[in-house]
Amino acid sequence: METKILLTEKELPTAWYNIQADMPNLPKPPLHPATKRPVGPEDLAPIFPLELIKQEVTRERWVPIPEEVLAIYRLWRPSPLFRARRLEQVLQTPARIYYKYEGVSPAGSHKLNTAVPQAYFNKQAGIKRLATETGAGQWGSALSMACNFFGMECTVYMVKVSYHQKPYRRILMQVFGAEVLASPTDRTQSGRAILSQDPDSPGSLGIAISEAVEDAATHGDTNYSLGSVLNHVLLHQTVIGLEAKAQMEKAGDYPDVVIGCVGGGSNYPGLAFPFLQDRFAGKAQSRFIAVEPSACPTLTRGLHTYDFGDVAGLTPLLYMYTLGKDFMPPAIHAGGLRYHGDAPLLCQLVADGFIEARAYGQRQVFEAAVQFAQAEGIVPAPESAHAIKCAIDEALAAREAGEARVILFNLSGHGHFDLAAYDAYLAGELQDYALPEEELQRSLARLPKVE
Amino acid sequence: METKILLTEKELPTAWYNIQADMPNLPKPPLHPATKRPVGPEDLAPIFPLELIKQEVTRERWVPIPEEVLAIYRLWRPSPLFRARRLEQVLQTPARIYYKYEGVSPAGSHKLNTAVPQAYFNKQAGIKRLATETGAGQWGSALSMACNFFGMECTVYMVKVSYHQKPYRRILMQVFGAEVLASPTDRTQSGRAILSQDPDSPGSLGIAISEAVEDAATHGDTNYSLGSVLNHVLLHQTVIGLEAKAQMEKAGDYPDVVIGCVGGGSNYPGLAFPFLQDRFAGKAQSRFIAVEPSACPTLTRGLHTYDFGDVAGLTPLLYMYTLGKDFMPPAIHAGGLRYHGDAPLLCQLVADGFIEARAYGQRQVFEAAVQFAQAEGIVPAPESAHAIKCAIDEALAAREAGEARVILFNLSGHGHFDLAAYDAYLAGELQDYALPEEELQRSLARLPKVE
Repeated sequence: METKILLTEKELPTAWYNIQADMPNLPKPPLHPATKRPVGPEDLAPIFPLELIKQEVTRERWVPIPEEVLAIYRLWRPSPLFRARRLEQVLQTPARIYYKYEGVSPAGSHKLNTAVPQAYFNKQAGIKRLATETGAGQWGSALSMACNFFGMECTVYMVKVSYHQKPYRRILMQVFGAEVLASPTDRTQSGRAILSQDPDSPGSLGIAISEAVEDAATHGDTNYSLGSVLNHVLLHQTVIGLEAKAQMEKAGDYPDVVIGCVGGGSNYPGLAFPFLQDRFAGKAQSRFIAVEPSACPTLTRGLHTYDFGDVAGLTPLLYMYTLGKDFMPPAIHAGGLRYHGDAPLLCQLVADGFIEARAYGQRQVFEAAVQFAQAEGIVPAPESAHAIKCAIDEALAAREAGEARVILFNLSGHGHFDLAAYDAYLAGELQDYALPEEELQRSLARLPKVE
Repeated sequence: METKILLTEKELPTAWYNIQADMPNLPKPPLHPATKRPVGPEDLAPIFPLELIKQEVTRERWVPIPEEVLAIYRLWRPSPLFRARRLEQVLQTPARIYYKYEGVSPAGSHKLNTAVPQAYFNKQAGIKRLATETGAGQWGSALSMACNFFGMECTVYMVKVSYHQKPYRRILMQVFGAEVLASPTDRTQSGRAILSQDPDSPGSLGIAISEAVEDAATHGDTNYSLGSVLNHVLLHQTVIGLEAKAQMEKAGDYPDVVIGCVGGGSNYPGLAFPFLQDRFAGKAQSRFIAVEPSACPTLTRGLHTYDFGDVAGLTPLLYMYTLGKDFMPPAIHAGGLRYHGDAPLLCQLVADGFIEARAYGQRQVFEAAVQFAQAEGIVPAPESAHAIKCAIDEALAAREAGEARVILFNLSGHGHFDLAAYDAYLAGELQDYALPEEELQRSLARLPKVE
């Protein structure tokens, strides 16, 4: 029996799976930030190309992947599915643990799966430059690389505190020719407004989104690109789950539980949606678990309602679980999981009971990460380690119950650029944060009013 | 036609190729540092297990890979062979460029190929702990990981300047449970001798080797482990070339030229030796090019003679190209290529005209590295980028000549822990060093006398 279950390049999926064709209830539509009426394609056209706007709303079950995108995907895809035999032995569990490894992408995470088609469809639409934001840097690295592949320019608004704390991520983007700016900047009205109040603002993902959206909206040759949350992003990520389904079939197994970490919600839907298709069709009864940090407990403690995607209120209002756009999570090391909201498609499936949500503190997450690394060799991204912690808990529960459960999780990226966080963990310096209830209520009280 | 040529786990080689069975002239034997007579197994027994001593001298063509080693190899092997189509397009060359990618190993380089069997054979011999040195950190990371896999302890003497400049490598080793010390230390006589002369010594690989060898020689449960130079190390690395041969056959091609970078000489022999077997047998006429930095030009400007492997003169005298054991190369960014000598087997093949040697300055190497990254996505280790520079030159020469040459090189590791060097390059701060002739002659004048 093999350690890695591989697919050939001929087995690479040629269409993405669109869950909007099959899910019982669609989320309420996005609303225009000013009129509070459902947004139309014309509202999105200043910052997105038509093809991506179509993908945002289509009900077609399959969306073809263009050959130009497949050619880039083949640089690292299909990605391997591992059977975690050594981890199973350490845990002495009868469970069979599988993980899909997206860290083999040259950007180091799943983010390149959507960066490539986003750059491609923008290039097709005649766009010369993409503007985006990045927090931990995974998304900025991926979009920089994708723009480079298609000969486009890329401007990345990088949250200032990350810009200074994560120079390696900044350099990686620059190797691929991107312009990287510490946000808030004085280039945008949104940035200048923040700086006038607090010249030393460390920035936030919400602020950086406002800057990137404004940059795109005010330059004709420039569009905006988002690495998570939106329907078309989740669509592109389903290449993960489609491959994983074919690989599980080769392994002769089917997952009893499908696990992933959630920040804005893109890697987990990418893995889970193709398996959810089977559940909707009554073909399988798998459980689905979305894992988030207890410091930013959007799915486990947030409200399912309309909120802005950014701090300045420039984006459409999205119907999602949210902690409130002004919520400022503490500086935990899983920087990619610090967003106040989550993808509307994912949130709807949580609200409808198809997906459970679970939150963990960062110390137990790093403990799981080190246990995983020592067993399997791969040092995981702190974000991905949330999924590992949950998978280990499920494997221990299987041992307790004496059941040979099949566990599948997404290892969305490696932790090569996050070793400072491991250093802090090994030195005993990591702290756990639990969001105080009164702080949460204060934030939720400021949610925008929608009729 | 595919981008990646993959092998299944069933196609993983089950024996290493021993070039000593086929090469026309063997190197002169290692000499005892005190008696200057050929060393016997009993001289090596205090620091190496019998099985590795046997592998050092065997003339058997094939050495079986134990199943326990294969089980760990399967975590990342067989590694992919890439056809560099996008790079070919950028260079507008008729050449077909292939690269074997060893950066998929969880340690990030080829070093794990020998770390795993070395840990295994020591464990079998009842050894509890391995001591070693590391410069850039690739070898220390690999041995830490391998010891962890077999439940052994690991002590890494890390060159002090790297210890402080490359904290990520240190942390990686610590994640795998290794004890990492900034060398020179006060734990060994060798270290104390250096510190008494220069308390602020930045250290060097030669000093760190002395410390690790002394640690092993003075502790009964501890052995020494070396990541390059020795015959058994090169033997283990042939898994690279054996896979590459099978992959080239799948691709329907055979290399006209086989290229790799050389520091102590392990990744390049690993790729080249299985192809050299064909050349010895008259089955192929490929060219072989070993690439080194012009700042540390061992093969291109050193002497082929006996020298110590370390600074303190504790190791046997090896017959090799050397710049002199006291040669202190400048702090170039390809830290893994700063050793004063090279593997005796490799040196013999250079002396006998089977392998050409070529040296490049670091600025042109980084230029090639960035060109490669932008074309292929992978950010290479600065060491590996020396091979890339040479491959690009060969591809341009093929364009010049209008010849569809087949070029194969080894991409021995990724550059995720070397981004500070890329930052310096992009900022225009990198300098080229050419070793002044008088400095070289001064160093060579201090070579040990051997009758």
